[in-house]
Amino acid sequence: MSNRFAIILAAGQGTRMKSKLYKVLHPVCGKPMVQHVVEQVSQLGLQEIVTIVGHGAELVKEQLGEQSKFALQAEQLGTAHAVSQAISLLGQETGTTLVICGDTPLITAETMEALLQHHEEMGAKATVLTAYIEDPTGYGRIVRNDKGYVEKIVEHKDASDDERKLREINTGTYCFDNQALFESLKKVSNENVQGEYYLPDVIEILKKEGSIVSAYQTDRFEETLGVNDRIALSQAEDIMKKRINQKHMMNGVTLIDPNNTYISADAVIGSDTIIYPGTVIERETTIGSDCVIGPHTTLKDSEVGNGTAIRQSTVHDSRIGNDVAIGPFAHIRPDSVIGNDVRVGNFVEIKKSIFGDGSKASHLSYIGDAEVGTDVNLGCGSITVNYDGENKFKTVIGDGAFIGCNSNLVAPVTVGEGAYVAAGSTITDHVPAKALSIARARQVNKQDYVEKMLQKKN
Amino acid sequence: MSNRFAIILAAGQGTRMKSKLYKVLHPVCGKPMVQHVVEQVSQLGLQEIVTIVGHGAELVKEQLGEQSKFALQAEQLGTAHAVSQAISLLGQETGTTLVICGDTPLITAETMEALLQHHEEMGAKATVLTAYIEDPTGYGRIVRNDKGYVEKIVEHKDASDDERKLREINTGTYCFDNQALFESLKKVSNENVQGEYYLPDVIEILKKEGSIVSAYQTDRFEETLGVNDRIALSQAEDIMKKRINQKHMMNGVTLIDPNNTYISADAVIGSDTIIYPGTVIERETTIGSDCVIGPHTTLKDSEVGNGTAIRQSTVHDSRIGNDVAIGPFAHIRPDSVIGNDVRVGNFVEIKKSIFGDGSKASHLSYIGDAEVGTDVNLGCGSITVNYDGENKFKTVIGDGAFIGCNSNLVAPVTVGEGAYVAAGSTITDHVPAKALSIARARQVNKQDYVEKMLQKKN
Amino acid sequence: MSNRFAIILAAGQGTRMKSKLYKVLHPVCGKPMVQHVVEQVSQLGLQEIVTIVGHGAELVKEQLGEQSKFALQAEQLGTAHAVSQAISLLGQETGTTLVICGDTPLITAETMEALLQHHEEMGAKATVLTAYIEDPTGYGRIVRNDKGYVEKIVEHKDASDDERKLREINTGTYCFDNQALFESLKKVSNENVQGEYYLPDVIEILKKEGSIVSAYQTDRFEETLGVNDRIALSQAEDIMKKRINQKHMMNGVTLIDPNNTYISADAVIGSDTIIYPGTVIERETTIGSDCVIGPHTTLKDSEVGNGTAIRQSTVHDSRIGNDVAIGPFAHIRPDSVIGNDVRVGNFVEIKKSIFGDGSKASHLSYIGDAEVGTDVNLGCGSITVNYDGENKFKTVIGDGAFIGCNSNLVAPVTVGEGAYVAAGSTITDHVPAKALSIARARQVNKQDYVEKMLQKKN
Repeated sequence: MSNRFAIILAAGQGTRMKSKLYKVLHPVCGKPMVQHVVEQVSQLGLQEIVTIVGHGAELVKEQLGEQSKFALQAEQLGTAHAVSQAISLLGQETGTTLVICGDTPLITAETMEALLQHHEEMGAKATVLTAYIEDPTGYGRIVRNDKGYVEKIVEHKDASDDERKLREINTGTYCFDNQALFESLKKVSNENVQGEYYLPDVIEILKKEGSIVSAYQTDRFEETLGVNDRIALSQAEDIMKKRINQKHMMNGVTLIDPNNTYISADAVIGSDTIIYPGTVIERETTIGSDCVIGPHTTLKDSEVGNGTAIRQSTVHDSRIGNDVAIGPFAHIRPDSVIGNDVRVGNFVEIKKSIFGDGSKASHLSYIGDAEVGTDVNLGCGSITVNYDGENKFKTVIGDGAFIGCNSNLVAPVTVGEGAYVAAGSTITDHVPAKALSIARARQVNKQDYVEKMLQKKN
Repeated sequence: MSNRFAIILAAGQGTRMKSKLYKVLHPVCGKPMVQHVVEQVSQLGLQEIVTIVGHGAELVKEQLGEQSKFALQAEQLGTAHAVSQAISLLGQETGTTLVICGDTPLITAETMEALLQHHEEMGAKATVLTAYIEDPTGYGRIVRNDKGYVEKIVEHKDASDDERKLREINTGTYCFDNQALFESLKKVSNENVQGEYYLPDVIEILKKEGSIVSAYQTDRFEETLGVNDRIALSQAEDIMKKRINQKHMMNGVTLIDPNNTYISADAVIGSDTIIYPGTVIERETTIGSDCVIGPHTTLKDSEVGNGTAIRQSTVHDSRIGNDVAIGPFAHIRPDSVIGNDVRVGNFVEIKKSIFGDGSKASHLSYIGDAEVGTDVNLGCGSITVNYDGENKFKTVIGDGAFIGCNSNLVAPVTVGEGAYVAAGSTITDHVPAKALSIARARQVNKQDYVEKMLQKKN
Repeated sequence: MSNRFAIILAAGQGTRMKSKLYKVLHPVCGKPMVQHVVEQVSQLGLQEIVTIVGHGAELVKEQLGEQSKFALQAEQLGTAHAVSQAISLLGQETGTTLVICGDTPLITAETMEALLQHHEEMGAKATVLTAYIEDPTGYGRIVRNDKGYVEKIVEHKDASDDERKLREINTGTYCFDNQALFESLKKVSNENVQGEYYLPDVIEILKKEGSIVSAYQTDRFEETLGVNDRIALSQAEDIMKKRINQKHMMNGVTLIDPNNTYISADAVIGSDTIIYPGTVIERETTIGSDCVIGPHTTLKDSEVGNGTAIRQSTVHDSRIGNDVAIGPFAHIRPDSVIGNDVRVGNFVEIKKSIFGDGSKASHLSYIGDAEVGTDVNLGCGSITVNYDGENKFKTVIGDGAFIGCNSNLVAPVTVGEGAYVAAGSTITDHVPAKALSIARARQVNKQDYVEKMLQKKN
């Protein structure tokens, strides 16, 4: 295998996106388009990846970091001009250079590898990635000669009637002999209506010099979708979603409706887990086996054990154990660690807390900045009062404690093991282990008071 | 341009809808079908719109109000009979009259304008809106003569084998020379199997009189969908949904899944706003730029500023400021005005309240009939007790106040600026500015009580 | 009509499902695949249904119970071997035997009845259920002779170029003369690459003996989908979902988005009910007329009256009356009986309780193990304290009682008719009818305390 390089075109503004966000940074299934491209390109065993940046250059560099080198295209003078910015980084190299757009998030390493292999086998100076489609309107057509080589690429608007009948189209991805590429780039002119330097002109230059230009036709046309507006963005999202979801289904995950299940490219899910519709699984979330997730559950950057059910709830940046039941209508906020056999019921929020094995908060509770031991029962409406308007404080609840309903634990405070807090109490001091703590007024019944009270009011 | 009129047929019962609601009042994307039709027709620069009403006449009139005049078709004796009810309103007029069904919610002004222009240019007495479709089974076929004029319209059941091969079909929308229309209507007979007066018979009568009948073929067949049952209703909803969503995407709104996002025809959304799946945006809702809406958020008749996030929450008839974070699992009920930089967290309900800039209600609160100043912190579980079983009362909370967790503010009550209400307190009287108000019992710890308590019980 | 029997093949492992759950037990729209098949087969007026079980035999028997007899296929030696396990149950019978796979959940009684009638009319010894499809790749092709009988069934891999052009395929469902079937099964050999006994070999054996083998071609190819992996499972779910949803729409139910509405095969829904997207209706749920359900509502094994709205909420194993408003964000847990004209608002949970006509729990409440009378008002944050860490106790609230906000009713406890519990009270003893009960500390305002408090802290 010869040396291989890649140039990723990521400098265009993307006016039709109508966005402040730079085009290639728009996410598809939660990951910026250019990041998808770089991750696929990175699987090709390359010597170097060079990303051409322009609009939003700093943000693109920040996104890609060490994954790529960068060349700045200060002015947007066309695709050939963009590629030629890589000359100082790649101009001296020999080998094969892949040129691909940063707004084609669906392209896979397999397709690019097949393109590169075809190119190298054919001994071509350039190879175009093409596809055969039913309705080629608007695309550049591939005109092949009798040897099957590329004779020319003709834009739709310039095509003759016969050429318009051709259904093999240019996808806009190429590979080149690196030396031939940079030599030819110098010869590209901008004498055209737009006054831009176009990369396909390199093909014509190579042809004129008698070089072989080949074409590799993929049967995965949908991979070559370029995203120029938000309609195409939603199409890319849909195709990527289906691809991700099919992978999980083949791995033994049941998706009740794969059209209505949104899983990030980086999520991992165990077999026999069932995912109900409306579920959104974001970023690097890991879910074990035999879980029930959803409907309408959102998980982000979290880890979920085996046999756990999370219904109509939201979990962010947290770890959930095995055989846990969460929701419906629960919210686990960042930095929470939920043990095994836990129950977090409806209208319960847990934030930045440790919640021990076998403990329960079944209704209407807020547990924040707390360490909750094992087998603790937090009664309905019990609250950790962790904030005094200035600072946040910690609550520690020992194993087996029972916290009564509608009680407040005013942090910093400690409830000992096996202690019992009476319903309706506001606890401000330490509760010793096995003690009963109570802080409430005695009940007084005022007979026949209601009628008088209502009379007084009216 | 000659005078133009429109007759909207909206008198049919719609038996196949199996509904108590009159057919043309069934909503598509939140708006009654006949309202969609009238809004499009109104863009055509007409002298008069006449809606033929019958079943549910009063409700249709109430819906359309000043947008249309009305003629009553007391008995349902066919489409020609329906149109002829307009004679007292339009019979004396000269010009062009569009006849359209009130159950075709997808038709656009552009298509009707093109039909009218074609009609007027051709000097025809009648023009049929037609479409060319792959499978014409069941539709009336357009038989054209060698000049391209309409020779006849033949119903599917009456068509010869050759005629059945024709793929140009009658969509059921027409325009007529107004005088020719009303003259011909008088000649339509009901001597047919159903005993009804059919509008297409007018075409035949005009043909026999030697008039030119033209056809204008639209390439937007889907616009002509007539809704006769709830399956067609759901198809109309789907097509309208896609049309609305494409508009927003072209304007720079990201829809993660346009198939699973439900936006009313009247909503306005700013660019770089991202809408997650399962979101329902109803009626005249306005959303600013750079917002994050959803997943699973419902907004109705509300106004949302810029940079605001509303996750898995419901907002009705309220105004939300800029840079606000709402949800997940929050509910903003009617007549609420939420300022800027506000946080409304999980399991919080706000009703008929003003909620000042920078204020927070992060968890498990109910704020009803209240005026909350700026930079107020409402602790978890704090509640405005606005109802005594008879009347509702108001709560006023001054700027910078801190309301402790699980506290009750029993309205009518005022908390002064910068005041502090201790957790677990029930506040019934005015709290002066900068005062600490406390209303709770002191904590008592009963050592080793738990074991005794349990023994007693068992 | 001759005697009829059915053999359902349900012994295969389903390796490609990658599941611990036996293949035919995977649910489609909430019901195991084999249960769908048995329910359809049961409508055919059969003398006997025999299900061949193998992997997971006990669970399949448990699922089907009295609906079928069973024959065990201890080793999986092919489809002919599977069918031959029924010999002791059916070998002596005369009549027609249908053979169908337990993993074809979409097949309908209508299609099987048509197959059986065709078979009986043709006097065939075997009849194959076939379909005509555009892309037959991978399927066994039906070769017919000049009389239209089946000449042979040829597997895709064994087919000649001409045979591959045939588009009539074998769906894998058959019916047989019962005696001919069992006689032929004895002659089937396993001398093939896999070493298995194949059922289509019976067709060849019957042909060789000069018997008539017929083919009945259905135009409902999608019914014959066999589920071998979770992608096919999701396809079956989608097709079944559409079928169920079309039935409800034709009955007068509005589904805003039938693609995003999940209704079990056994649910019953009244006309003019509107179902918003994201709604999941499971098992034997009954919903009346004029209801609004969803968005994002989950109902399971519940009964809902007329005119009731349930928004973004979850209801399980409960009964809900007429003209009730539930949600958004409410949770009705099992064994609850909700009367008419009730309001259950946001963040309210009701569990194992009776909730009388006209009563309200509008916000942030938990009602568990309670009997709530009529016209009771449960204030925001009011809670039944039904659990002491050991046992659950009952709360009884009389008609017309008013329970103040953030109050606790510590069960066992009774609140009399028309009684009034003050906000913030913890009630541990009986409250007499019409009494006011109060259990809270008096409010103390400490002037200018906040500044001192903050100074002390900092």
